[in-house]
Amino acid sequence: MSELQITFLGTGTSVGVPMIGCDCETCRSTDPRDKRLRSSIYVETPECAFVVDTGPDFRTQCLRENIRKIDAAVYTHPHMDHVTGFDDLRRFTIPEEAVMPIYALPTCLTVLETMFSFSFNGTNRYRGYLKPVSYPVLGPFKLGETEIIPLPVQHGKVETVGWLFQRHGKKLCAYLSDMKEALPGTVELMRGVDTLIVDALRHTPHTTHMNFTEALEFREAVAPRQTWFTHIQCEILHERDEKTLPPDVRIAYDGLKLEW
Amino acid sequence: MSELQITFLGTGTSVGVPMIGCDCETCRSTDPRDKRLRSSIYVETPECAFVVDTGPDFRTQCLRENIRKIDAAVYTHPHMDHVTGFDDLRRFTIPEEAVMPIYALPTCLTVLETMFSFSFNGTNRYRGYLKPVSYPVLGPFKLGETEIIPLPVQHGKVETVGWLFQRHGKKLCAYLSDMKEALPGTVELMRGVDTLIVDALRHTPHTTHMNFTEALEFREAVAPRQTWFTHIQCEILHERDEKTLPPDVRIAYDGLKLEW
Repeated sequence: MSELQITFLGTGTSVGVPMIGCDCETCRSTDPRDKRLRSSIYVETPECAFVVDTGPDFRTQCLRENIRKIDAAVYTHPHMDHVTGFDDLRRFTIPEEAVMPIYALPTCLTVLETMFSFSFNGTNRYRGYLKPVSYPVLGPFKLGETEIIPLPVQHGKVETVGWLFQRHGKKLCAYLSDMKEALPGTVELMRGVDTLIVDALRHTPHTTHMNFTEALEFREAVAPRQTWFTHIQCEILHERDEKTLPPDVRIAYDGLKLEW
Repeated sequence: MSELQITFLGTGTSVGVPMIGCDCETCRSTDPRDKRLRSSIYVETPECAFVVDTGPDFRTQCLRENIRKIDAAVYTHPHMDHVTGFDDLRRFTIPEEAVMPIYALPTCLTVLETMFSFSFNGTNRYRGYLKPVSYPVLGPFKLGETEIIPLPVQHGKVETVGWLFQRHGKKLCAYLSDMKEALPGTVELMRGVDTLIVDALRHTPHTTHMNFTEALEFREAVAPRQTWFTHIQCEILHERDEKTLPPDVRIAYDGLKLEW
């Protein structure tokens, strides 16, 4: 088995692609790479498996990828498209004594604990129901042999991080699905990373996400071996727009797997 | 156009069918009627269209049924499988001045307003974002010419209602997706209803849902012309189990349409 495997559960923006009520070329596309559920990744290592974010499509994504094991859930930020599938984590805390460690910034945990209060406070803890345990992230932590390092970014009003995955001293991959720009120190933390997975919403500018131009500039600052764009809106047509990118930069799609 | 049309957006229980990690006969079934997203209906009338509940599959359901218009959202109760798709209502409040009326019991509105606080309090009200307006349900109300009458039921700890849809004095349909038993007065409110859509989780008993036997007894008390079972778990195999029911009782499935 590889050291680290990432499966893209979703690569879409908050409203997904296709978008309800939209008849644009991408939303009518039959290319499966233009069908984008809300952004999330599933990370497998020899010791354990975890998910980064649980958006509204989380159950659909687990079924599609036949996911049977999740040892922890890690969150980037508490926007709805990243958290509302939380309840479906219940299928991964069977048998009864199992708990689900939840790793997130304290501000993100507060939102999760408010939204899903009966789950955290145990008032709805019937047999087989989700038993989350909060792990406030104050710095790097480990899941098995993987060091997981928060990467602070600016993404509108809500405190947000990306995550750097490092094993045995090697910076294998950085995942930053939602960002407008890096906060001071973040690029330095990523220096030498093999693979960058990064927010690249569309061509036109957006107040809280990077567009293709900004994402390409960020990749120049980080200088990874390869870059994958994610959190894509329907302004982007996979086949047409990937051709315009440098050869080391690709557009991710739902179901894509990367390995180290 | 008919007076009232109901489309079943979902007919599944909280974890859906198939269930993550389950290899039972139903979860492996290729019968499309055994693929059940979380329970919800879309109601169309000559004057307006509305949805009852917005579970986690709400976007997927809107795309499947090509729903372009929702004038209001009505809720039965605030369990996660009925509310977590709330954020995707945003696609139905465009242009900017549009609002989304939310009809629910006061206790249910409190949960929605807490879970989706930035939506209700406007802190995240960027262009095109969801603008909900709360309508606490204290008794019957009207949407267009449809009288919508709350049907109080017992469903575990959370205050829950079904909904009776009446037009021009005719009781066309009662929808009770989640109930263990009716509360006093509810059966009388439904007397003379044409169609009953009712919670019938499975064969074995459950603490907060009716099983097939209880649902059949409830239908005898209500005495409708026809009955459709919904909120179905994977213990039920559509083809096999529908055969065992009386001819006026059927098992609903995702995408089924009923008209009056």
